[in-house]
Amino acid sequence: MIINKPAYPSKVYLNGDILDAEKALISVFDRGFIFGDGIYEVMARINGRFFYKEAHLERLRWCIEQIRIPADVLAMERAIPSLLEASDLTEKDCLLYMQVSRGTAPRQHSYPKGIDPTVMMYAWPKTLPEINKDPASVITKEDYRWSRCDIKMTSLLANVMANEAAMENQCYETIFVRDGIITEASHCNVFFVKDGTLYTHPTGPYILDGITRQVVLELCENLKLKVCHEGIPAKEIPNMDEAFLTGTSTQIMAIKKIDGHLLFDEECGPITHKLQQAFLNIKNNV
Amino acid sequence: MIINKPAYPSKVYLNGDILDAEKALISVFDRGFIFGDGIYEVMARINGRFFYKEAHLERLRWCIEQIRIPADVLAMERAIPSLLEASDLTEKDCLLYMQVSRGTAPRQHSYPKGIDPTVMMYAWPKTLPEINKDPASVITKEDYRWSRCDIKMTSLLANVMANEAAMENQCYETIFVRDGIITEASHCNVFFVKDGTLYTHPTGPYILDGITRQVVLELCENLKLKVCHEGIPAKEIPNMDEAFLTGTSTQIMAIKKIDGHLLFDEECGPITHKLQQAFLNIKNNV
Repeated sequence: MIINKPAYPSKVYLNGDILDAEKALISVFDRGFIFGDGIYEVMARINGRFFYKEAHLERLRWCIEQIRIPADVLAMERAIPSLLEASDLTEKDCLLYMQVSRGTAPRQHSYPKGIDPTVMMYAWPKTLPEINKDPASVITKEDYRWSRCDIKMTSLLANVMANEAAMENQCYETIFVRDGIITEASHCNVFFVKDGTLYTHPTGPYILDGITRQVVLELCENLKLKVCHEGIPAKEIPNMDEAFLTGTSTQIMAIKKIDGHLLFDEECGPITHKLQQAFLNIKNNV
Repeated sequence: MIINKPAYPSKVYLNGDILDAEKALISVFDRGFIFGDGIYEVMARINGRFFYKEAHLERLRWCIEQIRIPADVLAMERAIPSLLEASDLTEKDCLLYMQVSRGTAPRQHSYPKGIDPTVMMYAWPKTLPEINKDPASVITKEDYRWSRCDIKMTSLLANVMANEAAMENQCYETIFVRDGIITEASHCNVFFVKDGTLYTHPTGPYILDGITRQVVLELCENLKLKVCHEGIPAKEIPNMDEAFLTGTSTQIMAIKKIDGHLLFDEECGPITHKLQQAFLNIKNNV
């Protein structure tokens, strides 16, 4: 498994200004730092367009409404072209990270009145592979996260710890198991395949409704693949035919091994492969 | 209920420097901001000494070990006197806030190697009342937090949202109920009294083992009050004789009303009162 070491971007958009990354500073009293009181989003720009931009921005809007941060997502969207230009990315494929925190105020748990949100964005060059051909090994772990995993928040210590546990085991991801049922991974959604039917945990408070997850569900409909919105019990893992992860930068990644159990010998199962091909077609035609 | 509006401190200790508060800046790439990847602590200085300092610092040490941030708690402790001096607090009662994040690095979920933690502390003048005579109204809410509440982390969005819900209901706190059992509040521990016995949720992953909670347990032993380390079912609230919150700045605060149910007519029940008096004695003699 190759994990690319991440690098800093050249420029950061911060509250209306575009700054050199090392000059993008915030107060230690920013509630993003003190409380993890923020929301984030990641989008991929492919062939000159952000992939499913509206879906990402709509989710950002929905999340900041859930925790009532009065940020202006439209203004953020409008600032993206100048950020890309300053970052020398106008002509390039890239990933865009967007974060909103509630803003800076003396520490108190409840929401302070009359403060401006902190808005931060940056982009970095990244050409996603046409098809993600690296199959993943994953581990499982009890889902010890909160019960509002549908909110894409920056209070991510649980996810960070789980992802670190995966890395320690030379794995790409940790898959969470809540009350015996597989929910999702530390930064990806999970699908299983059994007898030609796809299984994925239903939306609701226990998973993030990933955009790539939504795209895969669309693809399944187009391809007339049967989908069951049901979480797979962890004890059924050995009986599964295929499994894969989905995510904005992960795209569709076959899972080859779960807790040491080998799902298949080849690089990728046939349905995963079919969906990867269909996903590539969508990317080329959106 | 009077909520004092918090103010910024004058000075902030940040990675070895003591700065004016408005100059205490961190990178947007600090993992405290991006991931809520940090630990914090709050101590009260009373009559020239930090109350149960060793217990607080030991908990800080334990928490940073849990998430493997290599911070030097002893160095933090040694920096406190200069911070107090710069803050003009050498002779005053105050509260001290301490926070450690994993440090600054390009965004990746797992722990980056070879970075220095971000260490931040500040103190502000605060004379805690001898006895907290403000009885609290509280609401209850399903405990939707993660299952490692024993780690005093800065990924606090769940607590922030719950505290905001309390404020909206003109209440001081939200008490969490996990699987029907009361655990603790958004930033306090909870005790109940029934027929002369105190009940509090056992330590473990569902509560923070508060220092004031520990002091109250010591007081109960001294006063020969029976303690049962057992969470109270939420449906038993109407049958309770007394209830109170504990916390570093909350001290021991009687709960008068839970979800509109009035526990007692007086300002404070007799056992709560007895513990408040004993707590005052400890403060005067530590």
